[in-house]
Amino acid sequence: MGPVRPARTQAERRRHTRQALLDAVLLQLEAGESFDALSLRSVARAAGVVPTAFYRHFESMDALGLALVEESFRTLRAMLRDAREGLPPEQVIHRSVEILMEHVRQHRAHFIFVVRVGYTGNVVLRHAIRGEIRLFTSELATDLARFPVLREWTTDDLQMLAGLLVNTMIATVGATVDAPVAAPAAEAEIARVAAKQLRLTMLAVPHWRSERSPR
Amino acid sequence: MGPVRPARTQAERRRHTRQALLDAVLLQLEAGESFDALSLRSVARAAGVVPTAFYRHFESMDALGLALVEESFRTLRAMLRDAREGLPPEQVIHRSVEILMEHVRQHRAHFIFVVRVGYTGNVVLRHAIRGEIRLFTSELATDLARFPVLREWTTDDLQMLAGLLVNTMIATVGATVDAPVAAPAAEAEIARVAAKQLRLTMLAVPHWRSERSPR
Repeated sequence: MGPVRPARTQAERRRHTRQALLDAVLLQLEAGESFDALSLRSVARAAGVVPTAFYRHFESMDALGLALVEESFRTLRAMLRDAREGLPPEQVIHRSVEILMEHVRQHRAHFIFVVRVGYTGNVVLRHAIRGEIRLFTSELATDLARFPVLREWTTDDLQMLAGLLVNTMIATVGATVDAPVAAPAAEAEIARVAAKQLRLTMLAVPHWRSERSPR
Repeated sequence: MGPVRPARTQAERRRHTRQALLDAVLLQLEAGESFDALSLRSVARAAGVVPTAFYRHFESMDALGLALVEESFRTLRAMLRDAREGLPPEQVIHRSVEILMEHVRQHRAHFIFVVRVGYTGNVVLRHAIRGEIRLFTSELATDLARFPVLREWTTDDLQMLAGLLVNTMIATVGATVDAPVAAPAAEAEIARVAAKQLRLTMLAVPHWRSERSPR
C-alpha cells in the first residue's frame, strides 16, 4: 500500500485546491461582488494558492464559472427527474417543490451565483445558464408527454407548458435566494405559493386544445 | 416675454443634463458594465459635466438608479392598466403582451438595467425593483377581482394568480432583452409563447376551488 499513498495525497490536494477556488468565488459573490469584477489573482489569493496554480485547475475565470453552472444544475436535474418518474402524478408537484426548495437551501451560494450571473454581461456564462434551463425545460416536456392527458399535445405546446412550469420554478428560486437565510416561515410561504401556482397551471391542461397549426 | 426666457433656458438645460446623466448610465450598462461598478465621476464625465454638477440632479448613484427604476415601470403600468380596463376579457391578454413587447423594445436600455440590477448585490435598487413588481402584481390582482369568474376567489388566491401571470411577463421581458436587437422573428416567437402561456393559465381559472383556509 505504501507506494500508492503519495499519489493519492496529491489527488486529494488537487481536489482540495479546486474546491477552494470554487468556494472562494462563491464566497465573494455572496458578499455582493459581481462575477465579472473578480480577478483571477484575488480568487487564487483567497484560496491560498499562487495565480499560476489556478491554471492547473481552470483555463480561465469563465471556465471556473462554467464548472459552477454545471455543478448547480446537475444534481437538481437528476433529483427532479427521479421525482417525476417514481411518484404518482398528484404527488409530483408537491415533491418537486420540496426538492427544489431543499436543494436551493443547501446550495444557496451556487444559486446566488446562478441567479446573478444569469443576468450579467458575461455572454459565456449567461449562455451556459440559458442552455441548462433549456435542457431542464426540454426534459420536463419529455416527461410531461407521458401523462395520458398530455399525449395528444403538440411538441410546441408541451414545450410551452414546460416553460410555464419552469418559469414558476425560476421565480421560486429567485425568491428563495432573496429571502433571509434560515427564515423557515418565509421559505414555507414561497413553497406554498409555488405549489399552488403549479397546481393551477396543471388544472388548465385538460381544457387546452392543442392543435397543429395549419401550414 | 423677454424676461422669462433665460429662466426657461436654464430649466431646459437642467433637464437636458439630467437626461444626459441617465443616458450615460444606460449606455454603460448596455455595454455590459455592472451598475455597482460605475463611478459617479465616470458617469458625469460621459454626460459632459463635472462631478459636482451631478449632485445638483441626484444625491447619489443609487438615487439616479431609483429614478431609472421609476421611469421604467411608470408608463408600462399605466398602459397595462388602461388595456385591462378598456378591452373585453378575450382581448386583454393579446393586447397586454403587445404592449409589454412594444414597451420593452422601445425602452430596451431601461429594461436591460432593470433585469441586471434586479439581480445584483445592490440592496437599495433590488429592493426598489421588487417593490415595483409587487405593486404591479397587486394592481393586476385588483383588476382580476372584477372578472365575474374570479369574484369568489380569496385575496390570497388572486395574488397567487396575479403572481403567476407576472412571472410569465417577467420571463418574457428577460427573453426579449436577451434576444438580438431588431430581430422581429425572435420577438414574435417570444410574444407567441407568452400569449399561449397566459391563455393557458386563465383556462385554469374556472376549475380552481378557492377556499378560505381553516383557522
